[in-house]
Amino acid sequence: MKWSEINQQHCSVARALSEIGDRWTLLIIRDLIMGARRFDEFVERSGAARNIVADRLVKLNEAGITESRIYQEKPDRHEYRLTEKGRDLYPILLALTKWGDKWHIDDDQVPVGLTHTSCGHQIHVQPICPECGEELTYGSTRAHLRNPQHPYWKSASKSA
Amino acid sequence: MKWSEINQQHCSVARALSEIGDRWTLLIIRDLIMGARRFDEFVERSGAARNIVADRLVKLNEAGITESRIYQEKPDRHEYRLTEKGRDLYPILLALTKWGDKWHIDDDQVPVGLTHTSCGHQIHVQPICPECGEELTYGSTRAHLRNPQHPYWKSASKSA
Repeated sequence: MKWSEINQQHCSVARALSEIGDRWTLLIIRDLIMGARRFDEFVERSGAARNIVADRLVKLNEAGITESRIYQEKPDRHEYRLTEKGRDLYPILLALTKWGDKWHIDDDQVPVGLTHTSCGHQIHVQPICPECGEELTYGSTRAHLRNPQHPYWKSASKSA
Repeated sequence: MKWSEINQQHCSVARALSEIGDRWTLLIIRDLIMGARRFDEFVERSGAARNIVADRLVKLNEAGITESRIYQEKPDRHEYRLTEKGRDLYPILLALTKWGDKWHIDDDQVPVGLTHTSCGHQIHVQPICPECGEELTYGSTRAHLRNPQHPYWKSASKSA
C-alpha cells in the first residue's frame, strides 16, 4: 500500500495521519499552536527548508486545518491561523509534549509550561475517564472493533 | 535543518517526533496498541512494504519503545511488545483517534470503540484539567517559555 492510499483504511488513526502524519507538518502545527502566523516564523521555528514550509502550508489550507489571509500586498504575504479542525489538534500536541517531557527532557529543563487559564493551575496532561475520573492508561482500557467483519486496517470500500 | 537534527531543538514535541514522527512508525505503534505482535501482522495491518516494516521495527527497538523476543528458531522469528516508554504513547494514539473520529469518519461508522475496563464505560477522550475538571482546549490554556532566553525552537546546545 502506498502512503497516498492510507486514508482508505477504515481507521481514524490512519486517516488522521494521512493529513497530519508528515513530520514537518506536525512541527508546523506545533508552531501554529504556539502562536506563529507568518511564513518566516514557520521557517525559523521549524527549521525546515523554505520550499518544505511553503508546501506544507498549502496542504494545511487544503485540508481545512488552517486558513490564510493576505496581510500585505505587492508582494502578497499571507498570515495563517488554525480553523476549528486545526484547534481540535490541540490534545494530540499536548500528548506529544507530555511524552517528550517524560522521555526526552530532563525534569528541570522542560522548555514550555502550561497553565489552565480559567483556574490558573499548571497542568500535566493525562487523559481521564469522564465517568469515574481515573487516569486512562494503555492497560486500563479495552478496544473493540465495532464491526468485527470489518477490521480497522481494511479499506472503507470493502465494507457495506 | 535536516530532519536528523530535529532532536537538537530544546522542544519536547520535536524530540518526540524525532523518534515516532515517521508516519509508518505511528501506524505500527497503532497496531502494537491494538495487539499486533508479529512481523506478518504488522505488514498486513499497516499496509506498508515488508522492508519498511522491518526497518521501523528495528528503530522502535533501538528507541526502547518496543522489545522483542524470539518465539521460533531456524529461521528466527521475533515477537514485539511495547515497553513502558511505548505504553506511554497511548495518550497520543487516543488523541489521534478522537480527532480522526470527529473529522474523518461518519458518526455511525466509527471503527473502534473504547471501554474503560475498571468502570465499564465507553470513553471519548478529552484532556481534563486535573485541578478543576474542565476540558482543556486550545483556547483555555496558555503556554509560556520556562526560559525566555531559550525558546523551544533553538537547539539545546545553545542553552547553558
